[in-house]
Amino acid sequence: MQFDLATARADTPGVAHVVHLNNAGASLAPRVVTEAMTAHLTLESTVGAYEAAERAQSAVGRAHHAVARLLGARSDEIAIVDSATRAWGLALASIPLKAGDRVLVSPVEYGSNHLSLLHLAERTGVRLEFLPVDANGLVDPAALEQRLDDRVKLVAMAHVPMHDGLVNPVARVGELVRRTDALFLVDACQSVGQLPVDVREIDCDLLVGCGRKYLRGPRGTGFLYVRSAVADRLTPTVAGLDGIQWDAGGYRFAPGARRFETWEANAAARIGLGVAVDYALGWGVERTWQRIRTLAADLRADLAAMPGVTVEDRGVERCGNVAVTFDGLDPFHVRGELLRAGINTWVCLDNAACQDMRQRGLSRLLRISVHYYNSESELERLRCALDRLTTGSKATVFA
Amino acid sequence: MQFDLATARADTPGVAHVVHLNNAGASLAPRVVTEAMTAHLTLESTVGAYEAAERAQSAVGRAHHAVARLLGARSDEIAIVDSATRAWGLALASIPLKAGDRVLVSPVEYGSNHLSLLHLAERTGVRLEFLPVDANGLVDPAALEQRLDDRVKLVAMAHVPMHDGLVNPVARVGELVRRTDALFLVDACQSVGQLPVDVREIDCDLLVGCGRKYLRGPRGTGFLYVRSAVADRLTPTVAGLDGIQWDAGGYRFAPGARRFETWEANAAARIGLGVAVDYALGWGVERTWQRIRTLAADLRADLAAMPGVTVEDRGVERCGNVAVTFDGLDPFHVRGELLRAGINTWVCLDNAACQDMRQRGLSRLLRISVHYYNSESELERLRCALDRLTTGSKATVFA
Repeated sequence: MQFDLATARADTPGVAHVVHLNNAGASLAPRVVTEAMTAHLTLESTVGAYEAAERAQSAVGRAHHAVARLLGARSDEIAIVDSATRAWGLALASIPLKAGDRVLVSPVEYGSNHLSLLHLAERTGVRLEFLPVDANGLVDPAALEQRLDDRVKLVAMAHVPMHDGLVNPVARVGELVRRTDALFLVDACQSVGQLPVDVREIDCDLLVGCGRKYLRGPRGTGFLYVRSAVADRLTPTVAGLDGIQWDAGGYRFAPGARRFETWEANAAARIGLGVAVDYALGWGVERTWQRIRTLAADLRADLAAMPGVTVEDRGVERCGNVAVTFDGLDPFHVRGELLRAGINTWVCLDNAACQDMRQRGLSRLLRISVHYYNSESELERLRCALDRLTTGSKATVFA
Repeated sequence: MQFDLATARADTPGVAHVVHLNNAGASLAPRVVTEAMTAHLTLESTVGAYEAAERAQSAVGRAHHAVARLLGARSDEIAIVDSATRAWGLALASIPLKAGDRVLVSPVEYGSNHLSLLHLAERTGVRLEFLPVDANGLVDPAALEQRLDDRVKLVAMAHVPMHDGLVNPVARVGELVRRTDALFLVDACQSVGQLPVDVREIDCDLLVGCGRKYLRGPRGTGFLYVRSAVADRLTPTVAGLDGIQWDAGGYRFAPGARRFETWEANAAARIGLGVAVDYALGWGVERTWQRIRTLAADLRADLAAMPGVTVEDRGVERCGNVAVTFDGLDPFHVRGELLRAGINTWVCLDNAACQDMRQRGLSRLLRISVHYYNSESELERLRCALDRLTTGSKATVFA
């Protein structure tokens, strides 16, 4: 069955204005998401914000259920917060770790996660090590198996990194970690909405994602999945009134993931997230993933054939994040020229995934990230623009 | 000079629909705030969210400057986050505290802050004590002076509590704490936008506030002031790429308050916060505070004269949060009846300020919180509605 691109594009106001290939940054929202948010903001200004949340109770509560359905989880295993980085940080701070404990992290981990672990190691004496990777840059389960022992208390891993199209074998790692006492924390912020992510299949304890990337939801939204069996081992450092039960006899954390939420929430953003996830589920992630994969594979092949362009992605199965560098052209310059031509891309700096990029001598790269709503003719426009930039004289480029 | 109520109300779409007396929960936003946010959400859906933030760079960056101006701080002393509770929790987690350190907290402290401290004390052996209060429920500087010693490392205090009109003497406490090594952390989430809050006058090290209450800004916005002289003593547990400087030689936290921010932000909400704060500054907080104080004082006097109504507020100088209980009427019932009559109020439960409310035997109370845009005739409508409820037979009330 052919993919219904016409409907996908008709639902997306932005495609009339830009060629959006920055979906790994933040996707263009479908009309229904923006409308749901602006309608709620208007309702807040009309009847009061708390009162609007009461009237829109089911819309506000929808995000928990939608995210749970997306991930194959239960809704009490989901906390909604303001970003994936927040979710990741809240999760980390809640894990009991002490000097001498080993923590393994992927070398492609998002810089902010990596930094938080470095800082933790400095403060507590936790030993931070990188997960072993194979020749394709993928976490290597066989090598990992040799490294696991009972001092390993946490394995933290990016499903898809920010700066590369590789897809890490999270389910195979999950299977290994499950045999130990360690917790398995997956950063799925680049993968949710892009490819199928099922927490039971991955067998992780904790997983974070965000709304604005492949899920096409609002900025300022993220979520944390907490496997119900491990929730009671985790104590948040900040106790929200919603995340706790408190009476004269003392306090205890709310069951499940809700312990990670505090009272206040951006209700409009939460509504937008619920709408976005349901919209994604309406298309079917498996179906949109097939299209993303095909578009990206075609694009990679074309870019690889262009003189002066190097495709930097590793991995075996590759996703919609396509990373390239250029002979003699700064990615910032290329991004700027593309932007002027109405084509959105992004530059990843080496602090985005410090360990990996620095090891490979990459200081920056251009990330071209495709979504299912991108058309073949948009990619053709990109190729033409890149062709002009890479083959044209500098005089032409700057003209 | 007479207060220009007509303009205040003309700027506020909600006043045509409701009598909003839940300003200590979340105020009605002025039109300019909602419009700025919905315009930005529309721009995001048109050109891409990161690209929209680049185009609207000065609008997104405005919140830091506006909040700094509001508080008499420098903009690098301000971190913008997603709520006051978040700001408070980030601040607490960054303070080096160890077993045996004394932490003093106000008995009217917001429940979530209190709980976080209880949990911290349990984990670390920090000693948690309540600040001494006088007969009016105010923190008592003379008594506090006797209690301060060099083991006190943190004094945490609500400027205005959630459930009471009292205004704590933060500046007098600040003066005492400054003579010690302790940090002074003020929760100003109920006071910012309501009454003048100047961090130099208070002489605090840390202060938190939020956008949605008296500042009339968006939900999902909060901020943290960090006195520049103490920033380097504070290490956030989660390192955002924006809050850190990282190169081959290692990492160090960004100077000032920015160390508390992570990369992702709800740009629309941040824009709305900047607009709201500038709007508040346009009116002049001193001027709107005079009106709030007058409206609330008149309301308190009228309520105190009503049979069956008890005004529960303490303090000497009292603000716009008016707390009442009713003989034989549950505040939830009263709130529900008022809501049906188009009047928004709120019920505070005893977990909102556990120590204080439980000590006074208050399980819940009705909070009626006025803002400068409320009119005298709105308060007259409230009085009539309450009069019907408290004097009418139950049969009439439920009719």
